[in-house]
Amino acid sequence: MEFRTVSWAPSGALRILDQTLLPVEECYLDLDTVEAVIEAIQSLRVRGAPAIGIAAAMGLVSSLRSIFRETREVFLAEVEGRAERIGASRPTAVNLGWAMERMRRVARSTQGSAAAVFEALLQEAQAIWREDVEMCRRIGEHGQVLMKKREKGEIGEKGEIRVLTHCNTGALATGGIGTALGVVYTAVRSGKHVHVFTDETRPLLQGSRLTAWELSKAGIPYSVLPDSAAASLIAQDGVDIVLVGADRVARNGDTANKVGTYPLALVAHRHAVPFYVVAPTTSFDLSCPSGDEIPIEQRGALEVTHPLGRQAAPEGSAVFNPAFDVTPAELVTGYVTEQGILHPPFGPT
Amino acid sequence: MEFRTVSWAPSGALRILDQTLLPVEECYLDLDTVEAVIEAIQSLRVRGAPAIGIAAAMGLVSSLRSIFRETREVFLAEVEGRAERIGASRPTAVNLGWAMERMRRVARSTQGSAAAVFEALLQEAQAIWREDVEMCRRIGEHGQVLMKKREKGEIGEKGEIRVLTHCNTGALATGGIGTALGVVYTAVRSGKHVHVFTDETRPLLQGSRLTAWELSKAGIPYSVLPDSAAASLIAQDGVDIVLVGADRVARNGDTANKVGTYPLALVAHRHAVPFYVVAPTTSFDLSCPSGDEIPIEQRGALEVTHPLGRQAAPEGSAVFNPAFDVTPAELVTGYVTEQGILHPPFGPT
Repeated sequence: MEFRTVSWAPSGALRILDQTLLPVEECYLDLDTVEAVIEAIQSLRVRGAPAIGIAAAMGLVSSLRSIFRETREVFLAEVEGRAERIGASRPTAVNLGWAMERMRRVARSTQGSAAAVFEALLQEAQAIWREDVEMCRRIGEHGQVLMKKREKGEIGEKGEIRVLTHCNTGALATGGIGTALGVVYTAVRSGKHVHVFTDETRPLLQGSRLTAWELSKAGIPYSVLPDSAAASLIAQDGVDIVLVGADRVARNGDTANKVGTYPLALVAHRHAVPFYVVAPTTSFDLSCPSGDEIPIEQRGALEVTHPLGRQAAPEGSAVFNPAFDVTPAELVTGYVTEQGILHPPFGPT
Repeated sequence: MEFRTVSWAPSGALRILDQTLLPVEECYLDLDTVEAVIEAIQSLRVRGAPAIGIAAAMGLVSSLRSIFRETREVFLAEVEGRAERIGASRPTAVNLGWAMERMRRVARSTQGSAAAVFEALLQEAQAIWREDVEMCRRIGEHGQVLMKKREKGEIGEKGEIRVLTHCNTGALATGGIGTALGVVYTAVRSGKHVHVFTDETRPLLQGSRLTAWELSKAGIPYSVLPDSAAASLIAQDGVDIVLVGADRVARNGDTANKVGTYPLALVAHRHAVPFYVVAPTTSFDLSCPSGDEIPIEQRGALEVTHPLGRQAAPEGSAVFNPAFDVTPAELVTGYVTEQGILHPPFGPT
């Protein structure tokens, strides 16, 4: 990829690509305080469940760099407090809590000075990132068996595999090549012809702003469509496969993902188009029996009433703006993970 | 209503409320040429199947005012040509072609001078408008039997009837109080408590820009939601009834309406929420056996890539942007018309 969603700045700060400014500006921010990291996560400057987990771990380390000369006790207390605060910045993605829990455990189990603990945390954040790169790679490989044309098809060039996706699940959403979009990247690298239809994904337009931007950078043909036009496209046999990501998968397979995933799954199901959730197993929450137990974040009114900052609704309009919805497992054809294509129930039975 | 979608300017021109500037500006335009009328219809300055029919008829008359001193032959030829051109300005709404056909028939069957034909056409345009006002009133009355709470319900105040709607079907879309939204207005006037959930309706945001504006003017409580959040709202028992309009209803009940209606119907069907199409019988096309025969207008890229004029997708992005979709009749609970609540097949069998 020609860009880095997360990286280390020369100062040791967490460097992120500010996704709120895409596709118009490619601007990087260096973050070295807990407040800045939380703000970046809550404002969706960094987003996508895996990327949030990585940014949270790296951001935690970045914020601790200035206090590694403190006593071990003071340092450990700060790790606990800061990990707790960062972990609470958004409720739905499981990777965030998982990454913070992993960092806390490393801090507690590392002997020696604050500096030694800091070094162990730095290594752990690196490991979380590196593992995500590898998970993305494997997910991309495992998804290849699905990348083929259906019999039917009116739209698109002959031989082109038409993938419909929602939100952004690519290199911007992960540490590596992405999840659902990683399957596309892997297919294209192996010589397959793919056309991506990307839902624009209201309210924050991650499809048109981010997925389309990634695809244009990569030279992969794509079309942007209003979320509600996906049903028309599927109904006229314009789609070979639907690939979406996940913010949290429950033990029974119910999947929380960007709002709009559930109606998309219903339409795909009605028209017998394969619908796959593509996610690392770190997004699977085995402590969560079903979708009913997944907390859904409600976001503010301005995202709906003022798209891209411009007024679209009367002043003071109330909104209903859930960030995610829950797709029942029965509508999901399968789950593409770094361990292969899985089916529920997940985990020990 | 405190505003007029269409009216006569003192000059005799067609006066329309420019809906592209709402909700920020309430601006009226006077149109007295065929070109201006076509531009207003194509740019959606006036929209909604019934309002388009009325505006087309009144706009035709307005454009003819300057030539009523011509010979009868010249005048009739102009009526034919201009009605043809206005009638071709948008393909999907049946009212447009219907209104132009009605005007042509009156022109042909009226004896006497160009001035006499002009006068007959003026009366006919008035009649089309007046009949629409009356149809809206009757539709609103016939819809009242449906305005009640379902047993289930988590969201909203006790006793409040929660109506979900899509696009704009109110006074802005018709000559009267509207179709689907007219049912709401009628209910509120009779003392019922209603909360309207209005899909924002991408790409042109008729829900947040127009429906919310109408409702705020009328003092009726409402919430705006992204189109793709409607599934979440329905899944959590937040909706008592879905009411939508129609641009064209085929003989078997298949319904072309604003894109996003079909996935909404699928979700309502899955959750057993009543889903009604609300439209005058002038929107029923008995010459059209099923939805497969309804032409669907594809609109330009900028509506998707530049919401409210702001860039949301990379330059040069391709789009898939159908203005309408087709909802299969089996997903529609019933059809509220000025003749009562109907069920397909429609017309003589």
